[in-house]
Amino acid sequence: MQAAQYIGNKSFNIVEGTSIKPKAGEIRLSVGYVGICGTDMHIYHGVMDQRVSIPQTIGHEISGVVAEIGEGVEGFAVGENVVVRPLDWCGDCPTCNAGHTHICQNLKFMGIDTPGAFQSSWTVKARTLHKLPAGVDLKQGALIEPLSVACHDVRRSRLQAGEKVVVLGGGPIGQLVAAVAKSVGAEVLVSEPNESRRAFADELGVKSVNPIEEDLAAYVDSWTQTKGADVVFEVSGVKPAIEAMTEIAGRRGRIVMVAIHSVKPEIDLFQFFWKELELLGARVYEAADFDWAIELISSGQIDLKPFISSVSSLTDIGSAFASMDGNPEGMKALVECNPQ
Amino acid sequence: MQAAQYIGNKSFNIVEGTSIKPKAGEIRLSVGYVGICGTDMHIYHGVMDQRVSIPQTIGHEISGVVAEIGEGVEGFAVGENVVVRPLDWCGDCPTCNAGHTHICQNLKFMGIDTPGAFQSSWTVKARTLHKLPAGVDLKQGALIEPLSVACHDVRRSRLQAGEKVVVLGGGPIGQLVAAVAKSVGAEVLVSEPNESRRAFADELGVKSVNPIEEDLAAYVDSWTQTKGADVVFEVSGVKPAIEAMTEIAGRRGRIVMVAIHSVKPEIDLFQFFWKELELLGARVYEAADFDWAIELISSGQIDLKPFISSVSSLTDIGSAFASMDGNPEGMKALVECNPQ
Ligand SMILES: [Zn+2]
Ligand SMILES: [Zn+2]
Ligand SMILES: [Zn+2]
Ligand SMILES: [Zn+2]
Repeated sequence: MQAAQYIGNKSFNIVEGTSIKPKAGEIRLSVGYVGICGTDMHIYHGVMDQRVSIPQTIGHEISGVVAEIGEGVEGFAVGENVVVRPLDWCGDCPTCNAGHTHICQNLKFMGIDTPGAFQSSWTVKARTLHKLPAGVDLKQGALIEPLSVACHDVRRSRLQAGEKVVVLGGGPIGQLVAAVAKSVGAEVLVSEPNESRRAFADELGVKSVNPIEEDLAAYVDSWTQTKGADVVFEVSGVKPAIEAMTEIAGRRGRIVMVAIHSVKPEIDLFQFFWKELELLGARVYEAADFDWAIELISSGQIDLKPFISSVSSLTDIGSAFASMDGNPEGMKALVECNPQ
Repeated sequence: MQAAQYIGNKSFNIVEGTSIKPKAGEIRLSVGYVGICGTDMHIYHGVMDQRVSIPQTIGHEISGVVAEIGEGVEGFAVGENVVVRPLDWCGDCPTCNAGHTHICQNLKFMGIDTPGAFQSSWTVKARTLHKLPAGVDLKQGALIEPLSVACHDVRRSRLQAGEKVVVLGGGPIGQLVAAVAKSVGAEVLVSEPNESRRAFADELGVKSVNPIEEDLAAYVDSWTQTKGADVVFEVSGVKPAIEAMTEIAGRRGRIVMVAIHSVKPEIDLFQFFWKELELLGARVYEAADFDWAIELISSGQIDLKPFISSVSSLTDIGSAFASMDGNPEGMKALVECNPQ
């Protein structure tokens, strides 16, 4: 088997190794496709070198085929297509006991804290797997993880059909959030300065606006007849969005914080008081989000094919990362880890 | 009748006037007691001179007796004890139509935006009144408004019996929030630097801690066995509390923003992401909060008498305000507007 190891400084080594035999409760996968995530780009840039122990096989947006089944695992058969929910929780902390295993106090994120998926063979706990139904191919399967992020964000917002939603930021996650919100029956506006990303939103069938050229607050005010947005998703991570989110949210509006702001931003708490706003942090996903994401694809409610910008082979992983670097037009680059 | 008019610069004039005859839908009250609120102190300091049109009769924490009933008003009789929910909503904006009249887009707050209660006779819309049951006297009645603020804050937090709550700030509202949270069956900790306020919390039967002398985060960590607080109420309005709130809230913790932070504080959004925190803005109260507050008093679950620090006559309103100025030991000063 082959594995791509991140070795720091925007570089990967391709190494030959032996597959890891699944222990009790584990399954070995023949890896299908693995998507390059924004987090992987952060790792690539060295920003997370203190968390990732180098050399490390990263990657966590994965589809694959069951290749070998460990002792005691039931319900899976060799040859089945699956996706991985890449969370390793302890099962024993107060948060796990409260049922929130996805934010476990000792959570390990597979592909960051432990070895990941950019390899031809990956051995994981069977409890992390969701089956792909017939009709969802392995390429789309690699996008179930980011789609589950979007499903989780929308679930956190308690979005209802007919509500008006603004998504701040039209990158891959923003567009997926817009698509999920639309599938719920919401009216969606994507705020995004980049023209090709706005065109992508248009293709998706949602409205878009350029917040640099237009007055977003005035636009939302008129679009909502002064009511303001019911839900705002902050996906951009930029400072003007922090200003905008409290301005465009209507009374009792919910703001879901999807982006990671590394510096502590100044937040207009007066608006939280005045309009009784809610700010909801959202992190990764739960099993229900994966189930929902798979259902959205298999039922045809969301088409993930337009999100796939490129497919590279595992040996070309370096150029796949380089091509995504600073490229706002690329939505999702996939790496093919076994020739299909 | 007599009225106290705020004339700017920490000063009041006592003026003689004529009672206003209630129009259709209105009731004239013989005012009982009116509490001095933190907002009244802000007005007194001139901070809100651009909002309050001087000279203005302020005051909004009021109990009174029905004195005269306007046309078309049903369900009230002269001589009944009542309290006022001092909100004047438009009934016609999208927010009113959604049922959230307390944050109406055209809301007028009586006693700030329109004349208030520091007078012997006050004419108000009948829809603002709640009846005081026998056994709740007019002095306690004047504290129903701030208690309703606390009820609203606790309702916004979705607090459950057995949950662990930290109240940041042990002023009047913080102590009332602590009392309401305790009545729900929560375990409550008040964080407050002032010794007499901590002693007040102890009298109330809730735990207290001095965050200047003790490491609050470590204290909460040990108190909750690493789980963190289920609910945090930020009532202090000081900067260290903004730091503390995200630190001490546990995973999926709810933070209710009760204080008004006039400068935009830097908020640790990373903690919102990491722990999936919620920030909930809370403003004034709804009818249900007044009903709950009245029930808490009439059933004896909360005793408001310890909250009453002093009772002054209307003509002494100036010294009543002066005595509350910068006095952390005073909880609630009442002004008696008609000799009872
Ligand atoms: Zn990802
Ligand atoms: Zn755990
Ligand atoms: Zn008040
Ligand atoms: Zn209204």
